[in-house]
Amino acid sequence: MASPVELLSLSNPVFKSFTFWVGVLVIKMLLMSLLTGIQRFKTKTFANPEDLMSPKLKVKFDDPNVERVRRAHRNDLENILPFFAIGLLYVLTDPTAFLAINLFRAVGIARIVHTLVYAVVVVPQPSRALAFFVALGATVYMALQVIASAAF
Amino acid sequence: MASPVELLSLSNPVFKSFTFWVGVLVIKMLLMSLLTGIQRFKTKTFANPEDLMSPKLKVKFDDPNVERVRRAHRNDLENILPFFAIGLLYVLTDPTAFLAINLFRAVGIARIVHTLVYAVVVVPQPSRALAFFVALGATVYMALQVIASAAF
Amino acid sequence: MASPVELLSLSNPVFKSFTFWVGVLVIKMLLMSLLTGIQRFKTKTFANPEDLMSPKLKVKFDDPNVERVRRAHRNDLENILPFFAIGLLYVLTDPTAFLAINLFRAVGIARIVHTLVYAVVVVPQPSRALAFFVALGATVYMALQVIASAAF
Repeated sequence: MASPVELLSLSNPVFKSFTFWVGVLVIKMLLMSLLTGIQRFKTKTFANPEDLMSPKLKVKFDDPNVERVRRAHRNDLENILPFFAIGLLYVLTDPTAFLAINLFRAVGIARIVHTLVYAVVVVPQPSRALAFFVALGATVYMALQVIASAAF
Repeated sequence: MASPVELLSLSNPVFKSFTFWVGVLVIKMLLMSLLTGIQRFKTKTFANPEDLMSPKLKVKFDDPNVERVRRAHRNDLENILPFFAIGLLYVLTDPTAFLAINLFRAVGIARIVHTLVYAVVVVPQPSRALAFFVALGATVYMALQVIASAAF
Repeated sequence: MASPVELLSLSNPVFKSFTFWVGVLVIKMLLMSLLTGIQRFKTKTFANPEDLMSPKLKVKFDDPNVERVRRAHRNDLENILPFFAIGLLYVLTDPTAFLAINLFRAVGIARIVHTLVYAVVVVPQPSRALAFFVALGATVYMALQVIASAAF
């Protein structure tokens, strides 16, 4: 097995791919805050008294457009953040490059699709469910591999 | 002090234990989504119009069984995800194996118990509070050790 | 470029700074739970039947003081946790020490200020927005650098 020196170097194509997709997904997640902000201004839905732009406005928590983006964002926290942790440990188990790179790609693309069909243009089910389960399946597979490497 | 090469290798029992518990806790966290899904179907509580299975249903946000699982899941995000970050840095401070392995074990077991008594079978307090504070205490201890290693 | 051995060692000032700020921000985030708890007891706002201290109380979800702390905490999950992931990968790209250390410092201080003006003493806007965008900007910059290192 390769040593951690080689595994965490950008000359390792597995680590390079992981690094790329973490970068892309971090940007994607941070954009959710801006998307929420856009919806808040569009619908004049602010959650804090100090955010109200006019004395006529009141705090509001139930705008469906704002809440939709917030649900998509929360779904990111629930799925993308655990992937960041397990993906790094998976790289350190020295997996086959072809498989590992395609798993990272699957998670990255599936989570971008999940956002698009959930929070940008609402596409009927099962599009969101499919995107969700592709990323979930890949992450669970990595977690099982990591557990297997650590347990035996 | 050992070098990062040895510290992040599965031949380091501390890293091996960390890796194992991250794997277990990632699977545990991802199962929360499925548990939420089960509760949604059982109680026909869906948050998005495109998820409604029948034209008679309306979106609903206040089912207590769904919300309970969602609170447990959010509590995981708040506590397990910071543990992933600090645990890795704690491994890199080259801690005593016995202590470190038992801290990881404490976090892992306490967070599984937390889920069981919160979202699977509701057990009266202080069971959930105890599980919560065991994991919190262990994580704070690691964070303080990490700060001490970095500050001096 | 230095090898991962040197990059993830506490003798690398960039890694040392990253480690320090992750430790501080983990403690800060975990304190949000205690702050929520304090507000729950002060306002007798409990979300679970098993948490009610007296048979006269009912579960409650809309106390503005509790919800304010919870929004600040969620904002931490959305912004600090992605920083942990991208910060580590950014360290592994071997950035200029001066820039990297100041970026970590900017994120750390901005997120502490964000909490103070949001959940401790409410300070009028744009203080919270400024703190939010300083940390966001620094994190986006690191993510773009990480993507650039991995893509070329």
